Amino acid sequence: MSDRAFQESYPDDVSHCYGCGRLNEHGHQLKSYWDGEETVAQFEPLPYHTAIPGFVYGGLIASLVDCHGTATAAAASYRAEGRVMGSEPALRFVTASLHVDFLRPTPLGGPLELRGHVETLGPRKASIAITVSAEGVVCARGRVVAVRMPESMTPPQADAREPAGA
Amino acid sequence: MSDRAFQESYPDDVSHCYGCGRLNEHGHQLKSYWDGEETVAQFEPLPYHTAIPGFVYGGLIASLVDCHGTATAAAASYRAEGRVMGSEPALRFVTASLHVDFLRPTPLGGPLELRGHVETLGPRKASIAITVSAEGVVCARGRVVAVRMPESMTPPQADAREPAGA
Repeated sequence: MSDRAFQESYPDDVSHCYGCGRLNEHGHQLKSYWDGEETVAQFEPLPYHTAIPGFVYGGLIASLVDCHGTATAAAASYRAEGRVMGSEPALRFVTASLHVDFLRPTPLGGPLELRGHVETLGPRKASIAITVSAEGVVCARGRVVAVRMPESMTPPQADAREPAGA
Repeated sequence: MSDRAFQESYPDDVSHCYGCGRLNEHGHQLKSYWDGEETVAQFEPLPYHTAIPGFVYGGLIASLVDCHGTATAAAASYRAEGRVMGSEPALRFVTASLHVDFLRPTPLGGPLELRGHVETLGPRKASIAITVSAEGVVCARGRVVAVRMPESMTPPQADAREPAGA
């Protein structure tokens, strides 16, 4: 597994995301890494991240899929260009569409593992397939279509999200 | 608009959801209502529910779509049977799949409005289309496929989520 989380290479001005920003003290601070050709992240939901008692809230699962997907898109783009992640010019991605199939109840009370697989990777768009497992069993499958944020986009004027067809 | 939120009719044992449970003090406590043939909910994100500064976190938008979708499925099922929402036997729904297209950046700093439209409604499965608007502009479109939770399912033994094909 790589040593440094993808999200730790994000510039400060895009490190406030509620799902994965290292500067958002209220957020989930998800951290994603390479594991061979796949990407991996672990997250332990809090007791109140529940749907019905005993099971993880689906909205949290969708949130983790979202952030692991855009992080995987960014990391794969750097890797494809043979560049160190975080080097300039920055390759930042935002979510165009998010899909999650909930296959079975996700038990609450231990770590979840997300695994990302790059399905397609173009200069401006990537599709990332993600599984979410608990206790070694896949409980949800997701797909994130991520699009490149133009270099000219700087917060807070940035168009954070683009049409799915972009 | 109807007076009582759908979520206020949920039995106590399914009122702990992080997205909409009235008994989850840490959660979003989304509240959904009828407005004619549509359902509507409003939610004001907190300052830290951000993606990049100035814009709402997509995972939060997905979470709100999820809860408004299952709530709409339950309310529409009661209405179709001519029953008061919350009456026994309970009609509870869980999410089989969730899809969100992010059409444009969602500005942070005011209320979001969710509107739900019942696309299909069967005895065990419903499809709900949802728009998420800020300042009168649709920023995201979602779809929730919700499936009926069998009466025999009671937390915490319940299979909270079923396969998409169920």
